[in-house]
Amino acid sequence: MASLLTRTYPWIKLPLIVSAPMLNAATPALAASVSQAGGIGFLAGGTKPAELDKLLTKTSALIFSKSRLRNGILPIGVGFQNWGCDLHAMSPVFRKHCVAAIWLFAPKQLADFRPWAEEIRSVSQGRTQVWIQVGTVSEALEVMKLARPNVIVVQGTDAGGHGLRQSASIISLLPETKDALEAAGYPHVPVLAAGGIVESRGVAAALTLGADGVVMGTRFLASKEAGIPKGWQNELIRVKDGGTTTKRSTLCDRLKETVGWPEHYDGRAITNKGHLDEEAGLSDAENVRLYKAELKLGDEAFGNHGRMVTYAGTGVGLIKEAKSAAEIVDETSFGTRLIARKSPSYAQV
Amino acid sequence: MASLLTRTYPWIKLPLIVSAPMLNAATPALAASVSQAGGIGFLAGGTKPAELDKLLTKTSALIFSKSRLRNGILPIGVGFQNWGCDLHAMSPVFRKHCVAAIWLFAPKQLADFRPWAEEIRSVSQGRTQVWIQVGTVSEALEVMKLARPNVIVVQGTDAGGHGLRQSASIISLLPETKDALEAAGYPHVPVLAAGGIVESRGVAAALTLGADGVVMGTRFLASKEAGIPKGWQNELIRVKDGGTTTKRSTLCDRLKETVGWPEHYDGRAITNKGHLDEEAGLSDAENVRLYKAELKLGDEAFGNHGRMVTYAGTGVGLIKEAKSAAEIVDETSFGTRLIARKSPSYAQV
Repeated sequence: MASLLTRTYPWIKLPLIVSAPMLNAATPALAASVSQAGGIGFLAGGTKPAELDKLLTKTSALIFSKSRLRNGILPIGVGFQNWGCDLHAMSPVFRKHCVAAIWLFAPKQLADFRPWAEEIRSVSQGRTQVWIQVGTVSEALEVMKLARPNVIVVQGTDAGGHGLRQSASIISLLPETKDALEAAGYPHVPVLAAGGIVESRGVAAALTLGADGVVMGTRFLASKEAGIPKGWQNELIRVKDGGTTTKRSTLCDRLKETVGWPEHYDGRAITNKGHLDEEAGLSDAENVRLYKAELKLGDEAFGNHGRMVTYAGTGVGLIKEAKSAAEIVDETSFGTRLIARKSPSYAQV
Repeated sequence: MASLLTRTYPWIKLPLIVSAPMLNAATPALAASVSQAGGIGFLAGGTKPAELDKLLTKTSALIFSKSRLRNGILPIGVGFQNWGCDLHAMSPVFRKHCVAAIWLFAPKQLADFRPWAEEIRSVSQGRTQVWIQVGTVSEALEVMKLARPNVIVVQGTDAGGHGLRQSASIISLLPETKDALEAAGYPHVPVLAAGGIVESRGVAAALTLGADGVVMGTRFLASKEAGIPKGWQNELIRVKDGGTTTKRSTLCDRLKETVGWPEHYDGRAITNKGHLDEEAGLSDAENVRLYKAELKLGDEAFGNHGRMVTYAGTGVGLIKEAKSAAEIVDETSFGTRLIARKSPSYAQV
């Protein structure tokens, strides 16, 4: 599997570290830096083709040595929240910018993955790989049948931002999914782990569970290249004990008046005043009004007593400072090698 | 840490595998078999001293080579759900049967751990070790200050049965807890991981995250020695995809009319008719009535359309058959050694 990955994405280093396609937060600088450090950086496709075109043009300009890449493939990926996206509007952008991978997630129904996968393969002449994110074993089996993704991303419930309302963490979800894919006749599809991984111990654990690489979101939110407010980033550094200081909820979508998420999704964020007020019985209308009133406060509207949306995974407590994306990739990779080579604690067994 | 564990519990093999103190399910035969296979088997202390006395007498009779153990220490442990237990009623039982460890969990308030720890150390003359189970980083730091446990068990949210309503999985919780304990001046306390671990990949991942050993509950529920109905065990083998087929809820306590759990606890169980009816708006009174009416059906009252309480963790989908406790310990341990010694996948990095 490792050789399959390095053949397909010839610039990567192992272990494969991927930055998640986080809407607005995943800037061209973040995606380009992650890929240039040997990972795979993702942009978020959003819903507006013209904006994605601009993001891709910008990212392309940041990638050095493009000429050394085969077939003019841009060594980054683009991720879509499929429920809100129009395939036929986006398709010309895929045609214009041939990216290494397009990551599909959260369709209205799983069958919607099929036309996306077909179109991506058709316009890219097979050069763009199709990645699909799932949160359960049964989703993994179903999407393999429907769309034959080149890569499966298995997201556990510890992940920050959007994901399934109900799922397991990768500790059990990853090995069960690997076994089920193998039993169903898909032993060779690379499986990446996401959710709760922010540093080398998490990466090494995910690989031990059978993952072929990892995705990190929250860790890259706390990168110098991330397109998020300073107030949010300060929270990522301040907050500890993510199991109790973050929670899964649909409140953030309601505050932002985002309508249309399929109902089995919600999002994990750092809890703040909006969550507390909701628990105390505040109506959505009033919560939204208070949220909007605070928008103008900027960075001050983050924190325990703030109301801003502050997505983060349970691993947030392991983040001590903002770093450049390249440092994050290098340090995580280095730490994983140390764990693998310096006889690990269980080598005593 | 490994040498500390083998010095303290001289019969164990590494990696340390512990069977959780599951009320009624953790029989004398289960506890004795786990310890004799090189793990540490736990009984559940319950609330009635006379019953615990009987369980311990029975377990003691099952342990071979008792005479080879130092200081007459019974090579098993006993676990308590502290909120429902009377220390002074239980203390004479600790005095009569000196067990290797007493595991404390879920007190009305964390400060209640202190008199328990003092009494256990006093009546056993320091021979019985104090283990404390936590579910957050802050609980781990607090209990170290309050009671200086000899071992910390860190339970992630994937665990079956009772645990914190809100917490992280061990993928982030374990490394953050290890770091926090070290930073607070407790670098040497052994930390065991629980929650979602049912086989060797989970054990190897937990050790990679920094755990000094693991606890398995659900896996031992599906052992030949477990004291649970066949209907429950069939469910453990049937059910897949534990992230969606199990969920955390207080329903099981309400069905059993168990009163007194501190409100920040609930339990993870396989969802069945009782959960579905509750979601559809059925009152507790009616749900309890239907539950009681089905009790007489025995094993048939388990399953999708049954109403029996069927605790299980998210790793349930990795369980394929019931095995003897010794097989479980041996096979998990063997598999972990294979992962550790056969260059693991990430050794390619």
